[in-house]
Amino acid sequence: MGGDHGTHVTVPAVLRFLDHHADVNVVLVGLPDALEAELKACKAEVGPRLRIHPASEVVLMDESPQSALKNKKDSSMRVAINLVKSGEAHACVSAGNTGALMATARFVLKTIPGIERPAIAKMLPSLRGETCMLDLGANVDCTPAHLVQFAVMGATLVSAVKHVDAPTVGLLNIGSEDIKGNEAVKESAELLKKAPINFHGNVEGDDIYKGTVDVVVCDGFIGNVALKTSEGLAKMLAGFLREEFKRSWWTKLLALFALPVLSRFKKRTDPRRFNGATLLGLRGIVIKSHGGADETAFYWALRQAAEEAQAGVAQRIAARVQSQMAEFESGTAAVAENI
Amino acid sequence: MGGDHGTHVTVPAVLRFLDHHADVNVVLVGLPDALEAELKACKAEVGPRLRIHPASEVVLMDESPQSALKNKKDSSMRVAINLVKSGEAHACVSAGNTGALMATARFVLKTIPGIERPAIAKMLPSLRGETCMLDLGANVDCTPAHLVQFAVMGATLVSAVKHVDAPTVGLLNIGSEDIKGNEAVKESAELLKKAPINFHGNVEGDDIYKGTVDVVVCDGFIGNVALKTSEGLAKMLAGFLREEFKRSWWTKLLALFALPVLSRFKKRTDPRRFNGATLLGLRGIVIKSHGGADETAFYWALRQAAEEAQAGVAQRIAARVQSQMAEFESGTAAVAENI
Repeated sequence: MGGDHGTHVTVPAVLRFLDHHADVNVVLVGLPDALEAELKACKAEVGPRLRIHPASEVVLMDESPQSALKNKKDSSMRVAINLVKSGEAHACVSAGNTGALMATARFVLKTIPGIERPAIAKMLPSLRGETCMLDLGANVDCTPAHLVQFAVMGATLVSAVKHVDAPTVGLLNIGSEDIKGNEAVKESAELLKKAPINFHGNVEGDDIYKGTVDVVVCDGFIGNVALKTSEGLAKMLAGFLREEFKRSWWTKLLALFALPVLSRFKKRTDPRRFNGATLLGLRGIVIKSHGGADETAFYWALRQAAEEAQAGVAQRIAARVQSQMAEFESGTAAVAENI
Repeated sequence: MGGDHGTHVTVPAVLRFLDHHADVNVVLVGLPDALEAELKACKAEVGPRLRIHPASEVVLMDESPQSALKNKKDSSMRVAINLVKSGEAHACVSAGNTGALMATARFVLKTIPGIERPAIAKMLPSLRGETCMLDLGANVDCTPAHLVQFAVMGATLVSAVKHVDAPTVGLLNIGSEDIKGNEAVKESAELLKKAPINFHGNVEGDDIYKGTVDVVVCDGFIGNVALKTSEGLAKMLAGFLREEFKRSWWTKLLALFALPVLSRFKKRTDPRRFNGATLLGLRGIVIKSHGGADETAFYWALRQAAEEAQAGVAQRIAARVQSQMAEFESGTAAVAENI
């Protein structure tokens, strides 16, 4: 029901997704009338692979997480997450209010034992493929222990979905040397060196797009600034390129000829292909689509959800935390006692 | 002497600069032999508008600021800054070691009364012109009072150089609402509201390139991550665009035809045109060129220095801090006493 365009985007995207993914079924959760009307408009109907599960309320895009949690117990968001909890669904995808989605998911599903806080993770394009970055805004004040948990979660996600063995993890800093950064980052680096991950060391902002490491970890404040700054820059550059090709009849003609080149370029860097951020660290899979997502973007968020469900990301994180983090934490606790 | 290419870049850039700016004279500071050899190679010589001032040492690019300060009292960097202090030069431009330049400039010139810490400021391109952003890495832990000082300095720089009356200032945050961000940012917003500047409120990463405000202030850690992330993304996009145009003989031919369009696009977003970061808050003008700057980039850093000297940026900041900040600070102190 959520996002800037509601069912007009989510329903057509689901229909396209069902066409391309014969092994996945979808449950539409929300106001039945609105969903049925949209299905009808798309000349589609419910069936064995597509059903409607009713919810009588919708969380507004500007509603506070507290209000959503307290007052909208039958919201489409809450009911969809309940389906994940009960096992009726393997993943939940929403284009709705991020804060409310995170709060509801955390309240209903709970975090994985050993994970104190969920993080928002996302795949970003890089010169060498893709970089997984987290946290992108769920936590504005992180301790070094949180960053270690993010690192383990990010590495597990990349192993599971991208089939990378021992993915490298970098800590976002303002220089590659150990002496760089503020105290929190320096402490995090020390702890990450001892953590059960393939720690590369510090990385800088440009390493995200160079693809220096498979996973970049950072505090949610910094991650969010880096992500939004990237969005702004990409839009500005695209705008400038468009303007230059629209300058005269001759450049417009050139643009026409260059269309296959320009659209291949656009496709490669299309943010819609990278839509679908994961709320990582929960006992279930919840994917947040960009609120402004169009049909194509929402389709990619659905793909992300299906991939993570098929790879059993949440279970893998739980298993890894249980087997490796307990040992690591008792190790660091013993070190702390010795000091 | 500094930067990745030393005098091979700085000397030709200076010669080009002298050709284009008849009202500015240049002093080359460094090892006389190296400077003379480079002038000779450029078929140029010293004269009334260009002289050499000897310095017997060079700060290495990876030298610690402490070592540079303590052991290299006759470095080109130190001597050039001494010239600014003595009034023999109106500004210093260096492509050398950033940390050493900042430490030396701070030690020799001292900060402007009322400014606790200098900040690194830079103009960035935006959809509406240019955005001045600071701090870009001089301070990894800033208090709200520091951010207010940065705001006043950034606004004064933009007024002086870009002739903008009452430039708008935004605080970099992860949402535009007051409730967003970590505690430090929330406190900064409260203080900025009362400061003698035209405070717009919170801005997000994408606002830097949208041009929502004239000045964006942030902690140096965040600013540096945003800047480096932008550099990485711009390089990746340029790389992808190049690859797509090199894919076949047909796309190469297209690129040839599209060259005027592509080079106008490149020129508009050319980071070399934005080379030259200002070490703001010192009792004198010091400009840091990117270490990897080529001749064109270094030329732009020289221009930035000349503009700031001609506009009297350092004096204007000193005057503004004296007239407005004293009142503001006694005001906030009075408020603090009332609590």
